[in-house]
Amino acid sequence: MAVVHITRRERFSAAHRLSRPDWSPEKNLEVFGKCSNPNWHGHNYEVWVTVAGAPSAETGFVIDLSELGKIMREQVIDLVDHKNIDLDVAFMKGRYSSTENLAIAIWEQLEERITAAGGKLVKVKLQETENNFVEYHGE
Amino acid sequence: MAVVHITRRERFSAAHRLSRPDWSPEKNLEVFGKCSNPNWHGHNYEVWVTVAGAPSAETGFVIDLSELGKIMREQVIDLVDHKNIDLDVAFMKGRYSSTENLAIAIWEQLEERITAAGGKLVKVKLQETENNFVEYHGE
Amino acid sequence: MAVVHITRRERFSAAHRLSRPDWSPEKNLEVFGKCSNPNWHGHNYEVWVTVAGAPSAETGFVIDLSELGKIMREQVIDLVDHKNIDLDVAFMKGRYSSTENLAIAIWEQLEERITAAGGKLVKVKLQETENNFVEYHGE
Amino acid sequence: MAVVHITRRERFSAAHRLSRPDWSPEKNLEVFGKCSNPNWHGHNYEVWVTVAGAPSAETGFVIDLSELGKIMREQVIDLVDHKNIDLDVAFMKGRYSSTENLAIAIWEQLEERITAAGGKLVKVKLQETENNFVEYHGE
Amino acid sequence: MAVVHITRRERFSAAHRLSRPDWSPEKNLEVFGKCSNPNWHGHNYEVWVTVAGAPSAETGFVIDLSELGKIMREQVIDLVDHKNIDLDVAFMKGRYSSTENLAIAIWEQLEERITAAGGKLVKVKLQETENNFVEYHGE
Amino acid sequence: MAVVHITRRERFSAAHRLSRPDWSPEKNLEVFGKCSNPNWHGHNYEVWVTVAGAPSAETGFVIDLSELGKIMREQVIDLVDHKNIDLDVAFMKGRYSSTENLAIAIWEQLEERITAAGGKLVKVKLQETENNFVEYHGE
Repeated sequence: MAVVHITRRERFSAAHRLSRPDWSPEKNLEVFGKCSNPNWHGHNYEVWVTVAGAPSAETGFVIDLSELGKIMREQVIDLVDHKNIDLDVAFMKGRYSSTENLAIAIWEQLEERITAAGGKLVKVKLQETENNFVEYHGE
Repeated sequence: MAVVHITRRERFSAAHRLSRPDWSPEKNLEVFGKCSNPNWHGHNYEVWVTVAGAPSAETGFVIDLSELGKIMREQVIDLVDHKNIDLDVAFMKGRYSSTENLAIAIWEQLEERITAAGGKLVKVKLQETENNFVEYHGE
Repeated sequence: MAVVHITRRERFSAAHRLSRPDWSPEKNLEVFGKCSNPNWHGHNYEVWVTVAGAPSAETGFVIDLSELGKIMREQVIDLVDHKNIDLDVAFMKGRYSSTENLAIAIWEQLEERITAAGGKLVKVKLQETENNFVEYHGE
Repeated sequence: MAVVHITRRERFSAAHRLSRPDWSPEKNLEVFGKCSNPNWHGHNYEVWVTVAGAPSAETGFVIDLSELGKIMREQVIDLVDHKNIDLDVAFMKGRYSSTENLAIAIWEQLEERITAAGGKLVKVKLQETENNFVEYHGE
Repeated sequence: MAVVHITRRERFSAAHRLSRPDWSPEKNLEVFGKCSNPNWHGHNYEVWVTVAGAPSAETGFVIDLSELGKIMREQVIDLVDHKNIDLDVAFMKGRYSSTENLAIAIWEQLEERITAAGGKLVKVKLQETENNFVEYHGE
Repeated sequence: MAVVHITRRERFSAAHRLSRPDWSPEKNLEVFGKCSNPNWHGHNYEVWVTVAGAPSAETGFVIDLSELGKIMREQVIDLVDHKNIDLDVAFMKGRYSSTENLAIAIWEQLEERITAAGGKLVKVKLQETENNFVEYHGE
């Protein structure tokens, strides 16, 4: 049976910084550069979520995109959009807000709900600027 | 020998709807939402076709892109561009025009001709809107 | 007092055709080319609406973007998204659905509500494909 | 003599919020919505600066783009990139950080230096998200 | 009668350099920087041509886009695509190939044919990289 | 331990042609089409480099993006930007400048330095125009 990957994009705008509280400002600046600015900076993030499966004989869908969008908004976008990733987002507590760590956390937020909806989560892509993005495949 | 993937994009604009004739309008609306509008809607689709192979020692090409473009236009674009996918497209007869099913059908339209041209088709990506796309790898 | 132009984008996907009922199919094909396909085709349209004004001393806004978005959705997007422009859209009755005519009609749909919200509509830009768009300035 | 407009883009990522200190949190939320989040949010901003003039007979340039880029970086980008617009940016002191106000302030930062370089500043375009931007023409 | 602006994009890829034969290599390098490389460099250019007019009562068109595309290809694209702007392009003879000068020359190539087709050319926009473009309005 | 892929983009503008010195102009034209123009043509290229690894417990980074950018600029961009790929670029000596061959050569330029920086190079994507790109995975 043919397996198709389907991908949906959602977006959010958030503030964050890269800064370890156990490091001095000088050390943070040295390692994280301008990303360590104590007063925060921010980005327009794009999240691309990919689900694999065989298209349903009944509908032609791998997963209903409006259902996938709902899961993404409830589990991720509503919790991070127009928020401070380091201060306001429960699922990022205890993690430095690198794009890498954020992508892993988004995967964890999504996997159970997508599985429950009959899909198989295979990739989270998180774009931070037009020049960089990360991808996480769940392992 | 190094294997490179080369990808070419073509575009088409088409009408379609998601609607099963054996379902009531209410059931179609419930399952397919606004995509079930009886009078059709439409999209600008983008098709990205990826071919794998070792670059030729003679030309540096995996496949001649103008040949790949010609195959894509003759086998796909000329048949769907400015058409109604559900009424006008022979290779979609008997399939619901979900993006998933359309990507599989496009693969089937392309594989033989690309193989005959010395390439190995490895992916069809079909983008329906800026927020969603599907990918099919042929199995 | 400084005047700033602010622009908001919304998107819709719709079917249409270019075809005059008083012309033969041959004449329609000759003038409108593949756009005259009797079974329709479609596009992902992007609408960019520009409003001019002095930023409010109270809020810094020319117009509240969420209000502008609401007007655009209620007056345009909800009426054309996933519709057939020629069959389903009351505000296009009696007009050929060229991008030019559609932009003018969108202007007429928006002007009164935007004026009532305290803004001055100065441009409607309507993009039909990545290669063409029209702009209408209201006169 | 022919007048040509030349435009250069630079980008920055910054945090901000829309919030008046003399208003209650409830009032700020009512007027500014999720943009009023006390812990900030942020964006990837794009700044497009347009300069008009006759191309030099000696070089064919309206203005040297590397000089224009240098002015934009020194007068704007270096001061706002990876900063908090409301806390860190001297040229925004006393102004609510709406996109409108920020565009006006960027104009004021640029005009003198561009005039000194022999150009005529005619537009600042500031894009906050893919769905909204503002333009300021200096009056 | 309503006036609408319609814009069509075409693309070309070309080589060029910025270098005056009456200047020393050192002087060329000082003024034109890396653009003066004697062995050329190149770009993917995008040309956006805007035509103004009242939509025809007969067709809804300001100008037939396929006719506009044909004019653009015959007068510009076919002459510069996969060419060296400084060596191969007759309409650029005697002009330094700055983006500014190229936009003016493209206007001159287009104006007569567009007027003959019943349109009024109002803008040529020429994009050289994602970070810079020029616009020429014909005077 | 979670493995994340991180990708960074850099850009360059260069001239090249596809032409074998041991073939006649006619043969070159037949095989390489307009890409064989003796006076060169050019492109804006985009290079996307993907590195895989487990995010560092200390920083959350797979690899420091500013370090990755530095490697890309020193090993690739500074050597090809505003150059002629066939005449000026030592690492392309003896190879036809097809996009495929250029991607392989870029991989070879990057791999050692990225490994030394603690990363694992997994993909080079090279985009030549908006309609075509190649990807190389190192084998």
